[in-house]
Amino acid sequence: MLKKRKAKTLRILVCNDDGIDAPGIYVLVQELKKIGTVTVVAPDKQQSAVGHAITMSYPLRMKEFRKDGKFFGYAVQGTPADCVKLAVRAILKRKPDLVVSGINHGSNTAISIIYSGTVSAATEGTILGIPSIAASVTTYGKVDFRFAAKFVRKLALRVVKKGLPDRTLLNVNIPPLKETDIRGVLVTRQGRSIWNDTFDTRRDPGNKEYFWLTGGLDEADIDLEFDQAAVRKDYISISPIQYDLTDYAMMDVLKRWNLNDLIH
Amino acid sequence: MLKKRKAKTLRILVCNDDGIDAPGIYVLVQELKKIGTVTVVAPDKQQSAVGHAITMSYPLRMKEFRKDGKFFGYAVQGTPADCVKLAVRAILKRKPDLVVSGINHGSNTAISIIYSGTVSAATEGTILGIPSIAASVTTYGKVDFRFAAKFVRKLALRVVKKGLPDRTLLNVNIPPLKETDIRGVLVTRQGRSIWNDTFDTRRDPGNKEYFWLTGGLDEADIDLEFDQAAVRKDYISISPIQYDLTDYAMMDVLKRWNLNDLIH
Repeated sequence: MLKKRKAKTLRILVCNDDGIDAPGIYVLVQELKKIGTVTVVAPDKQQSAVGHAITMSYPLRMKEFRKDGKFFGYAVQGTPADCVKLAVRAILKRKPDLVVSGINHGSNTAISIIYSGTVSAATEGTILGIPSIAASVTTYGKVDFRFAAKFVRKLALRVVKKGLPDRTLLNVNIPPLKETDIRGVLVTRQGRSIWNDTFDTRRDPGNKEYFWLTGGLDEADIDLEFDQAAVRKDYISISPIQYDLTDYAMMDVLKRWNLNDLIH
Repeated sequence: MLKKRKAKTLRILVCNDDGIDAPGIYVLVQELKKIGTVTVVAPDKQQSAVGHAITMSYPLRMKEFRKDGKFFGYAVQGTPADCVKLAVRAILKRKPDLVVSGINHGSNTAISIIYSGTVSAATEGTILGIPSIAASVTTYGKVDFRFAAKFVRKLALRVVKKGLPDRTLLNVNIPPLKETDIRGVLVTRQGRSIWNDTFDTRRDPGNKEYFWLTGGLDEADIDLEFDQAAVRKDYISISPIQYDLTDYAMMDVLKRWNLNDLIH
């Protein structure tokens, strides 16, 4: 019972980038309520591919959002990173024990991680000193989030028990399969697949040209050590990620470039 | 002469996040024209702190932008990353030899790198296989970009001569000083200073609450190995950065977490 009470005292902040009315966040919140007190602070509308954007030039506004006639959370006119900042710095009285972002409808693997609002919310949690998880189901098609949400609940407890390093979060990608069809969990690294972007060039009714981004992920990752390969092979992928972007090996190379010559 | 002709054949794509009409990009373009053919594709308005956002839900529109009565470049209703993607995938006939993003008015050091539109444009160049440089002058006050632009021109030539690794770009921060007051160039790593965000809570004329993000960088970086410390001590900081966010050390730890237990 002590254990149960202890778990129940967990304070969990939930965010996403699909918007506060998305099914993925709803199913996630139902699961996380089993292990703690959940506060939802999420964008009022879809914010996919916003990267780690924050809002500085405009004020943020926030509304209480109701679902099925009950208070569900705070809807913010802002980005996922805005939501987490606002929650931690202005809404919550105490720093939460955990930030969970998701469950995103669509993969956040390989290069997509750097465009991902889902990951950025969890990154912001990490920056603010809170263990954080980003979770996605790897399909854009119709999806049942229940297995993924259960998995994330169990992973959240594991994270609370084990802890995470100061500047590291977990990026979890779950295939849209039944529990019995999942082949296992793999600890992975960020894949190297990039988007083969193309722009669809069109003309509006006034004959003005516009461009629409399209294209898919080039599947460059074959080895199961990569997140994108793992999910394609029906594994749950968990990548520890961090936000020190320094290329340490290249520092030594650059030191031999005689860069002081460039000043004069 | 051959050398000069060779340099002149450089094709350089210039972007920024302060907007195509910002002084920093204008001064940069004047310098880069001395070494190559410059194409400017930049946001039509300020896009600071947009992170690595891209526009997928809306089409992109583009206009020719004139400065002093002459064609200066293409102004895109989009983010810095959008601009680079659109330039490389739809506007330019050939892939450019170099992407230069900036010159930003304000630092892009430490944690700010992950929020930075300036860096994201250069990152997008790198993703697309083009050696890329992000450049910033480290003040929000009044600034003369000329020394910084000259430095970036010389650095650009050095980058073309030496090359960069496939997934690495250079993030350059230049103090707002005269050439003679610059103490040197340091090769640095991303600092660990974060923002001590606070939200200014206000009420609008209709008595509705709104929040405005404010606060400054906590100066946690003392050692000159960090970008933020270097620029504060009047050095030009050059950090090689990359976008594989994997925390490799943590992968080994996670493999001992028995994560397969969490499926059932």
